[in-house]
Amino acid sequence: MKPAARTVLSSPRHPLLQQFRRALGRGELTPEGCCAVEGVHLVEEALRSRLEVVALLAARSAEKRLENFEAATNGGLRSYVTSDRIFRSLAQTETPQGIAALVRLSPPRLEEQLARPKAVAVALLGVQDPGNLGTILRALEAFGGAACLLGPKTVSPFNSKAVRASAGSLFRVSVARNLTTEKIFSLCRQYRLHTVALAPGATPPLSTVDLRGPVAFFIGQEGSGLPPEALAQAAVVARIPLAAPVESLNAAMAASLALYETARQRGFRE
Amino acid sequence: MKPAARTVLSSPRHPLLQQFRRALGRGELTPEGCCAVEGVHLVEEALRSRLEVVALLAARSAEKRLENFEAATNGGLRSYVTSDRIFRSLAQTETPQGIAALVRLSPPRLEEQLARPKAVAVALLGVQDPGNLGTILRALEAFGGAACLLGPKTVSPFNSKAVRASAGSLFRVSVARNLTTEKIFSLCRQYRLHTVALAPGATPPLSTVDLRGPVAFFIGQEGSGLPPEALAQAAVVARIPLAAPVESLNAAMAASLALYETARQRGFRE
Repeated sequence: MKPAARTVLSSPRHPLLQQFRRALGRGELTPEGCCAVEGVHLVEEALRSRLEVVALLAARSAEKRLENFEAATNGGLRSYVTSDRIFRSLAQTETPQGIAALVRLSPPRLEEQLARPKAVAVALLGVQDPGNLGTILRALEAFGGAACLLGPKTVSPFNSKAVRASAGSLFRVSVARNLTTEKIFSLCRQYRLHTVALAPGATPPLSTVDLRGPVAFFIGQEGSGLPPEALAQAAVVARIPLAAPVESLNAAMAASLALYETARQRGFRE
Repeated sequence: MKPAARTVLSSPRHPLLQQFRRALGRGELTPEGCCAVEGVHLVEEALRSRLEVVALLAARSAEKRLENFEAATNGGLRSYVTSDRIFRSLAQTETPQGIAALVRLSPPRLEEQLARPKAVAVALLGVQDPGNLGTILRALEAFGGAACLLGPKTVSPFNSKAVRASAGSLFRVSVARNLTTEKIFSLCRQYRLHTVALAPGATPPLSTVDLRGPVAFFIGQEGSGLPPEALAQAAVVARIPLAAPVESLNAAMAASLALYETARQRGFRE
């Protein structure tokens, strides 16, 4: 094993720390297209997903944790150490574990995913809560889904809460951003996905809709639901039956249940 | 309509404000057994659920919002106004709406709920995330569940994030706290609930378990899962089938899917 070469970053203005700070704080990729992730589990998931870890950063008090990662990658990681104070200033978690990384995503190509036989996609129009978006990516992967299509006014998948809630699924599923509603429906036509919008009180119940062919679910904003143009264009507007007085579920629950129901109708694939 | 009588609270040390501060900050009931809630939607849910609103508090900039509530209750509310600064100091949300209330819960009795024909209960052993707990209460009510049994090391249902994620379901479902695992299993025996533990990788898949009779689902901690004594005592340990490499779902997703699957097997009751 090569000896670990760790660089100590003592100035909070060091360009690499600035990259971490901006990417974590704004929930956006770095200019080089890397995603910033925080926490031991996510770095493990990135390595497990065979992503390139461009930089691994530890707070001084968590420096010991670098050893495992360095051993696992045979010393091939670029490791950096900074003070606990600086680490806390760029972390987005309330009680940081002292480990963060910049990873280069290499998601499967959208077109290939949508062209899969019996592809399942989820289109999110206006989902604002990053935890919900991350949870949806996790459910998408768990139930064999192909891609997530993000429409207008939808939170960034690189938001640190979204990355955390995805529990690593963001590293492996195909996510297309900044799509117009029109573009999403056009993709669905192109790949012959059955468009199923979910809305409280709609007919029919989802469990009676045949979900065994290629399908795209449309999920709207937590408060106001799907925009009228999406409800009008969808082939089916279905409901998840709810006992009164509950009127709706949050976006993550609705999407997870739709993905579960789809996998169930297909006999699950593990 | 009676004229609205609003009291202005100008000292941050006013006992009522202290009650709000402690209850919201600690996620616990007030000494008088009231739950503190924040936000317009939750106050509406409390009134819709016919709970007694013991005190309604508005920040000065949100005072206008009091009018709707006062009109809806025919002036029967005790309304208070405080400065925006004081309100922010006790609020738990990042961007407070300026409305909070102390409400007296009157949940349905646990024993009656568990004795219902085909009762569905969810037992949580060590669920730490308040958002997950709230989401589970929402799913429990949405799919006709009877009660939530909270075991050791489980977050308080009165945590403000839990209350918010429950979207009002906390006001209407039966939640029993601080139960030992032994007590939970003893309740299940007493009410003849089929005990179904959920664990990744277990056999059989949940969709093949007959969930049409009285049933209690056991859900463990997000990281470490259910404790061995719960896995050993459960009548069935089932899995939700997941596509690799996803190894688990978060507690809220697992519980929601189990409750959905139960309602589906029973033909849903809306």
